[in-house]
Amino acid sequence: MELLKQKIIEQGKTIGSDVVKVDMFLNHQIDVDLLCEIGKEFRRRFPSDKITKILTIEASGIGIACIAAQYFGVPVVFAKKGANRNVGDNIFKADVYSFTKGTTTTIGVSKDYLTADDHVLIIDDFMANGKAVHGLLNIINQAGASVEGIGIVIEKGFQPGGDALRSLGYDVQSLAIIKSIDDGKIIFG
Amino acid sequence: MELLKQKIIEQGKTIGSDVVKVDMFLNHQIDVDLLCEIGKEFRRRFPSDKITKILTIEASGIGIACIAAQYFGVPVVFAKKGANRNVGDNIFKADVYSFTKGTTTTIGVSKDYLTADDHVLIIDDFMANGKAVHGLLNIINQAGASVEGIGIVIEKGFQPGGDALRSLGYDVQSLAIIKSIDDGKIIFG
Repeated sequence: MELLKQKIIEQGKTIGSDVVKVDMFLNHQIDVDLLCEIGKEFRRRFPSDKITKILTIEASGIGIACIAAQYFGVPVVFAKKGANRNVGDNIFKADVYSFTKGTTTTIGVSKDYLTADDHVLIIDDFMANGKAVHGLLNIINQAGASVEGIGIVIEKGFQPGGDALRSLGYDVQSLAIIKSIDDGKIIFG
Repeated sequence: MELLKQKIIEQGKTIGSDVVKVDMFLNHQIDVDLLCEIGKEFRRRFPSDKITKILTIEASGIGIACIAAQYFGVPVVFAKKGANRNVGDNIFKADVYSFTKGTTTTIGVSKDYLTADDHVLIIDDFMANGKAVHGLLNIINQAGASVEGIGIVIEKGFQPGGDALRSLGYDVQSLAIIKSIDDGKIIFG
């Protein structure tokens, strides 16, 4: 998606050879016009009418998922972090390890909002090692729901998450794939 | 807002005399069609062309703020929780006490995304004691920005947050104000 790649080049800030900060338009301040274009592009790449729900994870996935959902005509469900704090067993849970933070978080989705009848599109802002998406897939499997695809705004192509999921047969669509960061210059794949 | 009140009555679940769960359409599963109507209603209630930014707080405010922002043509900034973990001093911070959880969280907004030139509309899903909004106001004051208004989807009118802010002169617009919960029946104010 050219518009997104331009935005990353113009505004993104690289740190070393593996970090790109995009919190000026994607995950702290949010450029909603750009999000609309991202939402339309996800719809173009996932044209299936079988999709019944968009699943994401708090916090920065929520805005992207909600804007995109307008073009799909389906509700959004977001997995909550820190689900271990919640009481009750009416919840699907999965552990997600964050390489960035070096910690494991339990995420959860109420059993009321994901069922075996659902055809789910996963949407998230970033994919590196893919651990968050693995957690969401785990939850979808617990629910017996179907996975229609995985839509990612920015994939770090030099980390293994995306290709590992593709090799499992999932339809992973990343709108910008960063192949490498070379001396502050971002190279797309 | 009649559509919202109907939805609360039809789908909301009351617990005792002071809790209404709306996580089936607002803060876990999200009815995006309803969010669009909520966004339009916020625009109707805050018609000012001076607004430059919508400020909210993770996680459940983000979807509402992003959908609403489409009708204002401005970016969203969301305050992050757990800001004390972040390094650096390029951040406005405020402590927010949660009566529900009995804990204090530090929220933060990067100084890059809120300046003295900004005219800010605060948007959030719920207001009870108003502590989250107080934290956001604290951050706006640190930035020297102006407050154009406070838009809340559901206000618990039997708790003091909304009226305390109105008595300070803020333009607080709540789309549904719950006056009381009487034997499972929700009474709007």
